[in-house]
Amino acid sequence: MNLRKVNIGILGMGNVGTGTVQALEMNRAAIEKSTHRDIRLKKVLARDLTKKRDVELPEGVLTTDPTEIICSPEIDIVVELLGGIEPATEYMLKALNNGKHVVTANKAALAASYDKLLETAKENGVSLLFEASVAGGIPIINSISTVLRGNQFDEVSGIVNGTTNYILTQMTDYGLAYDDVLKTAQEKGFAEADPTADVCGFDAANKLSILMALVFDEYVHPDLIPTEGITNIRLSDIEAAKSANSKIKLLATAKNENGKITYAVKPTVIPNEHPLAGVSNEFNAVFIRGNAVGELMFYGKGAGPLPTGSAVLGDIITLAEMI
Amino acid sequence: MNLRKVNIGILGMGNVGTGTVQALEMNRAAIEKSTHRDIRLKKVLARDLTKKRDVELPEGVLTTDPTEIICSPEIDIVVELLGGIEPATEYMLKALNNGKHVVTANKAALAASYDKLLETAKENGVSLLFEASVAGGIPIINSISTVLRGNQFDEVSGIVNGTTNYILTQMTDYGLAYDDVLKTAQEKGFAEADPTADVCGFDAANKLSILMALVFDEYVHPDLIPTEGITNIRLSDIEAAKSANSKIKLLATAKNENGKITYAVKPTVIPNEHPLAGVSNEFNAVFIRGNAVGELMFYGKGAGPLPTGSAVLGDIITLAEMI
Repeated sequence: MNLRKVNIGILGMGNVGTGTVQALEMNRAAIEKSTHRDIRLKKVLARDLTKKRDVELPEGVLTTDPTEIICSPEIDIVVELLGGIEPATEYMLKALNNGKHVVTANKAALAASYDKLLETAKENGVSLLFEASVAGGIPIINSISTVLRGNQFDEVSGIVNGTTNYILTQMTDYGLAYDDVLKTAQEKGFAEADPTADVCGFDAANKLSILMALVFDEYVHPDLIPTEGITNIRLSDIEAAKSANSKIKLLATAKNENGKITYAVKPTVIPNEHPLAGVSNEFNAVFIRGNAVGELMFYGKGAGPLPTGSAVLGDIITLAEMI
Repeated sequence: MNLRKVNIGILGMGNVGTGTVQALEMNRAAIEKSTHRDIRLKKVLARDLTKKRDVELPEGVLTTDPTEIICSPEIDIVVELLGGIEPATEYMLKALNNGKHVVTANKAALAASYDKLLETAKENGVSLLFEASVAGGIPIINSISTVLRGNQFDEVSGIVNGTTNYILTQMTDYGLAYDDVLKTAQEKGFAEADPTADVCGFDAANKLSILMALVFDEYVHPDLIPTEGITNIRLSDIEAAKSANSKIKLLATAKNENGKITYAVKPTVIPNEHPLAGVSNEFNAVFIRGNAVGELMFYGKGAGPLPTGSAVLGDIITLAEMI
């Protein structure tokens, strides 16, 4: 089989980077068969070149110099998995301006500069794909951008943060207090040492900003999205919802009512019959309603190295086939 | 705005054809803005040119001569919505051989000649898209073909027939007997006058054949899929499942266990905790499990003019942008 070589450079080899490389290596033969592409990991930007890793990297790919990826004529696709707004945004803009396709899983950077990043890609005739930025492995971004384009939507709502959904589920199912569940979640690695971005709803607001830009063609900076987290939810609130045959979920919601778009991230009481009510623990789900397709829900793992790596790799494959 | 004209010809103006044209017309302005394409309905094949229709068609587009669509140099995309195996298959092959892109919602024709149709498209350098053929408006086909390609799957299972799911749900929720629910469903238009293809599982087998070809790259003719419908399900079976905290669903399932692929369509007892158990009435859902992404479920309306039209229109838009 004659394979066309496609060289990728990855910025950042944390959890998502590790999952992406693992997914690529475990499915390499099938991917080569279906795409006729040899996707080569050419360079990886990392802070520590000597750190022990969960994945074997080809000899000599690690570097501490980002220009070896974003400026190298050898690299076809730059995969940005650094997290955080800077230097990720600067690197993505440079890579796009250097004529490279970019894949990112970075919701914070994307939500903060959505228009600028997408316009820069367009100006340079390259693509910026970001399936992994919302709801991890769930194929919501591509579906909205392709198959569902014959719709106008009046709602997009999601449980898009696994940490908070895990905490609320544990409180609901076992009657545990918020502080106790958070502590266990941190011990198990389901919550970060500093859980602020998750439990205060900022992570969900980033994802809602991206969803709104796609679904309503209206970009709103995440700082302008009214955002309330779950830190004030007590067991008594959960019990009150239960008595009303409902559950409390941290919901990111945007609605279009006669052209007026409203949006918020906040704990929301959802009746048990609603498909979102059954989404438990670390699972994510996105619900949308279109004027042709009606109600749709996408359900799956919204975080974790391999599920998120699946989405990053899907974008890499899409671009590799275009090259 | 300078729009590129794309001419489509539709074979068959029944429910799905009507829904496709309705979805296109109600969202035309938004589609033109995002695609820069003017999608024009050039010709429509219909049996009866004088029949009153739920949608207004442009003057002079109706014809009883299929060659005005499949052989016309004016038509860019042929949309096959006739249903049934022939003459639909013959028309699709002719259109592909004439260098036209084809969109179809026809699971029976596609499942019966999957390899032949896809190969003919490839030989002619054109595309055959079929998002609407499985689970109506739910974007499962495109997701498997694009975003999820960095996975190998060990299971695909679906509630992919709305009629049978409606009947089973009504039996479960209201303790109604099979024959009574079927009669009501026929009166309400949820079941056809001849419900054989639905209640005997043949429609689900067609859809499973298509899913297996995509998910496992293994095409199995639907006649070779062990298929059992719901005609023998009694209220006592439903009650027994209920006592075991479960529900009976007509499930189309294919599994890959160490390279051995097993498949069947049959009534299946599903524990209430499984995401497929909560899929009620005319809703469809498809569950897949990949080695990177883990468990995913897609939920939405699997039938009806507008949901199915949404999927057909999504494929038309994808092709229109390629032209």
